[in-house]
Amino acid sequence: MYSFLNDYSESAHERLLDALIRTNREQTAAYGEDKYCEEARGYLRTLIGDPYAAVHFLMGGTQTNLTLIAAALRPHQGVIAAATGHIALHESGAIEACGHKVLTVPMYAGKLSAADVEAVFEAHYNDINLEHTVQPAMVYISHPGEYGTLYTFDELTVLRRICDRFDAYLYLDGARLGCALTAAADVTAADIHRLTDAFYFGGTKQGALYGEALVIRDASLKRDFRYIQKQKGAMLAKGQGLGIQFAELFRDGLYLELARHANTMAARLSEGLTALGIPLYVPTETNQVFAILPDAFMSKLKDRWKWTVWERCDETRSVLRFCTSWATPAEMIEAFLADIKANQ
Amino acid sequence: MYSFLNDYSESAHERLLDALIRTNREQTAAYGEDKYCEEARGYLRTLIGDPYAAVHFLMGGTQTNLTLIAAALRPHQGVIAAATGHIALHESGAIEACGHKVLTVPMYAGKLSAADVEAVFEAHYNDINLEHTVQPAMVYISHPGEYGTLYTFDELTVLRRICDRFDAYLYLDGARLGCALTAAADVTAADIHRLTDAFYFGGTKQGALYGEALVIRDASLKRDFRYIQKQKGAMLAKGQGLGIQFAELFRDGLYLELARHANTMAARLSEGLTALGIPLYVPTETNQVFAILPDAFMSKLKDRWKWTVWERCDETRSVLRFCTSWATPAEMIEAFLADIKANQ
Amino acid sequence: MYSFLNDYSESAHERLLDALIRTNREQTAAYGEDKYCEEARGYLRTLIGDPYAAVHFLMGGTQTNLTLIAAALRPHQGVIAAATGHIALHESGAIEACGHKVLTVPMYAGKLSAADVEAVFEAHYNDINLEHTVQPAMVYISHPGEYGTLYTFDELTVLRRICDRFDAYLYLDGARLGCALTAAADVTAADIHRLTDAFYFGGTKQGALYGEALVIRDASLKRDFRYIQKQKGAMLAKGQGLGIQFAELFRDGLYLELARHANTMAARLSEGLTALGIPLYVPTETNQVFAILPDAFMSKLKDRWKWTVWERCDETRSVLRFCTSWATPAEMIEAFLADIKANQ
Amino acid sequence: MYSFLNDYSESAHERLLDALIRTNREQTAAYGEDKYCEEARGYLRTLIGDPYAAVHFLMGGTQTNLTLIAAALRPHQGVIAAATGHIALHESGAIEACGHKVLTVPMYAGKLSAADVEAVFEAHYNDINLEHTVQPAMVYISHPGEYGTLYTFDELTVLRRICDRFDAYLYLDGARLGCALTAAADVTAADIHRLTDAFYFGGTKQGALYGEALVIRDASLKRDFRYIQKQKGAMLAKGQGLGIQFAELFRDGLYLELARHANTMAARLSEGLTALGIPLYVPTETNQVFAILPDAFMSKLKDRWKWTVWERCDETRSVLRFCTSWATPAEMIEAFLADIKANQ
Repeated sequence: MYSFLNDYSESAHERLLDALIRTNREQTAAYGEDKYCEEARGYLRTLIGDPYAAVHFLMGGTQTNLTLIAAALRPHQGVIAAATGHIALHESGAIEACGHKVLTVPMYAGKLSAADVEAVFEAHYNDINLEHTVQPAMVYISHPGEYGTLYTFDELTVLRRICDRFDAYLYLDGARLGCALTAAADVTAADIHRLTDAFYFGGTKQGALYGEALVIRDASLKRDFRYIQKQKGAMLAKGQGLGIQFAELFRDGLYLELARHANTMAARLSEGLTALGIPLYVPTETNQVFAILPDAFMSKLKDRWKWTVWERCDETRSVLRFCTSWATPAEMIEAFLADIKANQ
Repeated sequence: MYSFLNDYSESAHERLLDALIRTNREQTAAYGEDKYCEEARGYLRTLIGDPYAAVHFLMGGTQTNLTLIAAALRPHQGVIAAATGHIALHESGAIEACGHKVLTVPMYAGKLSAADVEAVFEAHYNDINLEHTVQPAMVYISHPGEYGTLYTFDELTVLRRICDRFDAYLYLDGARLGCALTAAADVTAADIHRLTDAFYFGGTKQGALYGEALVIRDASLKRDFRYIQKQKGAMLAKGQGLGIQFAELFRDGLYLELARHANTMAARLSEGLTALGIPLYVPTETNQVFAILPDAFMSKLKDRWKWTVWERCDETRSVLRFCTSWATPAEMIEAFLADIKANQ
Repeated sequence: MYSFLNDYSESAHERLLDALIRTNREQTAAYGEDKYCEEARGYLRTLIGDPYAAVHFLMGGTQTNLTLIAAALRPHQGVIAAATGHIALHESGAIEACGHKVLTVPMYAGKLSAADVEAVFEAHYNDINLEHTVQPAMVYISHPGEYGTLYTFDELTVLRRICDRFDAYLYLDGARLGCALTAAADVTAADIHRLTDAFYFGGTKQGALYGEALVIRDASLKRDFRYIQKQKGAMLAKGQGLGIQFAELFRDGLYLELARHANTMAARLSEGLTALGIPLYVPTETNQVFAILPDAFMSKLKDRWKWTVWERCDETRSVLRFCTSWATPAEMIEAFLADIKANQ
Repeated sequence: MYSFLNDYSESAHERLLDALIRTNREQTAAYGEDKYCEEARGYLRTLIGDPYAAVHFLMGGTQTNLTLIAAALRPHQGVIAAATGHIALHESGAIEACGHKVLTVPMYAGKLSAADVEAVFEAHYNDINLEHTVQPAMVYISHPGEYGTLYTFDELTVLRRICDRFDAYLYLDGARLGCALTAAADVTAADIHRLTDAFYFGGTKQGALYGEALVIRDASLKRDFRYIQKQKGAMLAKGQGLGIQFAELFRDGLYLELARHANTMAARLSEGLTALGIPLYVPTETNQVFAILPDAFMSKLKDRWKWTVWERCDETRSVLRFCTSWATPAEMIEAFLADIKANQ
């Protein structure tokens, strides 16, 4: 049985665990103020080209999202997101539990459209009773998005301009940011930093045991962030574990290397599926493959392979998601393709 | 330079990291539903003698406290704690951020008194305008408490009785529970489970890289807990990391062994200090030593040793805290005592 | 200039103000425990046929909604409402500020459909990762709805059955409940009480100076409600002002009489418009008339009459809302119709 | 039976009710944007000498406090108040329900001391782990305080200076502000406005049927306040009822006149009690009289008079509170004193 369910089935890349072993009995400062966190911060600041960026290490994606959003918004403000966005759908109301409405717009292949976002702002500020409705004050995007697709440099630039016009934050959820940065995209980490107010380099889905590296450019968001981090239970006492992992990931490019591997595996799987005449639901840009498969197929292979049924397509077919990762062996892709072929 | 600042300066016991390495490329279920979490749950349920206990793994103490309390209380309810309790003082208002008041009572050597607790309940229910004040609905205690001291079986029983009388929860913060269970105390893990509605086995301060094991006995608290856990960002995607560690800690007694070591080191340090004529502020029951030392002492040794200045004692002396841990080498205790002696 | 903007432009019916004058210097108990509140409670309990109903007086609709919902839901629970529902759109995120997501479904002529509601519950409980999404635990409806339309007895019964099946509350916003009860509907106040867990008799839009009477049937919602009411700033010190008004409204049928007048005025306006060939957007069931009018019309009459532009219809026409009330003079309806005719 | 329980037992001064009757069928704008609210705002701005002050009308004290504080603080910030302050003790955790901790300091005759307040700020900013504790960001005072006592101009000035030093808000709860302004104090309404960031003129306890007038000087607090007001259910649809009352109260000095009457009655009662040898607990500065009386007294008079038992004094005596108001008849004071005399 092999699983393409997600990119967090395996624990962590060996180099990270080795680094933890190696530094195991060192005494370090607590709460993210140790030398390893500082080292990792240095690598990230170099990568994005901003020595003044604030970098905080948190444990998971939902936690990072809710902490940053709680730190950013006043009580009457909400955040615009795709209706299928992680904060809108898959965080058990974490944002609402912090007091804020998620204002949803339609999603197109995993991305939101600038026109829709602008319309939300305009509808609000044109409302004669605007104080009776939630004030949009942040735009939340995922890059890659829910379907593994990517924003272009121009798309990000337009969103930035809209946010500037309406005095709103632009926040980018980078749970799989490595996969975005190593894809055939025209957006660099430095671009993302310059065009957003905050974003994070996901660790959990990119080979770390746990951890996300939140990067803040906006001065007002930087202020007092650590209070909110502590308040939300998002400041690990043993912060060194985060620093050690992120230092290892970013010292010499391991982060991008692992992400590139995941992308390569997904590209190979996509090619193989296409060669077998299986249509893709959206073009594969990063490490998630969405393919349209007959239900009959599912029953034949389901004892040997795991995937996610994303949605029904029609009476006899579904969209399935196959997720590759830093740990996916190339031979598993080939074996899977061979198994499909044998059962077609 | 050696630090007695806290018990989370070092990463994790080698056996835990080895187990992580060993299982590294296994694919497991996510969000705490993997086989290692299930294995660890089994050990804990056996230890406390309740096959029906709910066991959830979270990442840190503040997170565990706020998640459990948010799950337990209705909006108008508050939690009684010592004025120096962790939730009252050191969590950046985490409980209030979940909407709940912390109702404080005095602390006596790190513990709250049943009489004070009862008085809070009685004052509330005797108030003619009781709806104008926060309804006490939970009692929060730490075991060991802020000064490393322990509740006796009788003390816990009385608190339980008070909580029953006023239909309130009793919740025990066990950040250092191993140290309590291996001290010269008359309270077992099974007792604690039976006498409280929820408590946790702390991992972070007892040798784990991260993680706490929350145990819930009360049926209403069990219900839907995982929703709240997810909402608070407290459900790790790679839950297997928690399961692997806790399975290792509880499979064959490692948890207690590590805690016992910390206690032994603290006992030796206490004996040594006493032999040198240095008074203890409170008797040492677990792994924290509170000693009264002249400020002159501090200036002589502060370049070689680290400790926490807990509070001023008088014009020339302070209460210092020395924290031992699973990782404290016996020779460091002796070296420290020798250094004190040499500088007296 | 005469306004059909809403039903709260005038202060209050004279009988209510006279009653306030009459009782002005009486000393009464505070916080809703005075004899007038008790008297009003008696009338309401008789009307709904339940001597054990809890009746609380609050000041406004948003306040009543947020207080009841905060009292009802646990942190991970949300409330299902029409996307155009008051709590979803016009309360500045009041429900989210209490920590809860509003789960929206489409609206059909101001009402939500049982099928949509059921689908929300089913989607949630069929989700393999249900704890990652907000648990629907209440259905919120307005009666009359946003378009002045009414639920039938059968429709309410089906919603009740769905709520029972999924252990959820059914809550009815009765801001204009008098208009519903006096319309050609088959639902009585007693029916509403029996079929919902809580609902309110709106005062503000039905002739009171301020105030809503919240009625609770469900035992768990009754418990400790006054704490939440106080906490939300929703317990008026001078509760007698609410009691005096509601006693006056319900002692001898004034509430229904005023509502009937509003309905009659709306019916007459609807007839008149229809006779003039102006189409209604939805049939008029209560005191709100939605008509489709050319923009040219608006520019001719806008200096003498006020209305609300509800939404654009097409290039040249809009849906306008004309709201009648307890205070609308019959002659104003006629004068308005005459003015339209003269300008057609 | 006559009650000295509080100053909100009677409804409202006749002139206010007459004004409501007089304007009853006028159609006005909603949500506090009517001409009467505007008129009242003008009077208040003149009184405090600031044409740019923001003035908002809310319904009650708890509501005003929670709305202003929610608008002011970021999630990690708390408000310093006397341990007996209204927000600390008598609002059912309203501030915590908005997410904020109330940081308490001792109370001295109803007032907090500048030294205590300063100590809270200093302790926070000197804490090496300051992010682990709640950041004090506002000082809340009542004027008059819980014992009817008043801050002097110098005391307010010192508090202002402390707040400036630590970048914190100073907020003054003026539930009985009229009584403060007409007492033998050296603080004017203009002083209060200049020295605080926000404060309110209480209406409920000063002769209005309901309503408080919140005045905001600080620019950041002014911004978007109406959103928060709406969100908290604190924006009355029929705002004209508030405007009409406050216009009447402040057009020609009625507010101060009513407050002066309450003070005069309290002064007369205090003199009378003193003449009868009954000691006052604190000197009477405004409309609340705190006297020390034997319990035997209470049993003799309790069928004819009502008061509040504030606290036990010793085995045989209690501190009783007698509250006078705009409605207290002079003859009731005399009758009460005569009754005491007759029963001594």
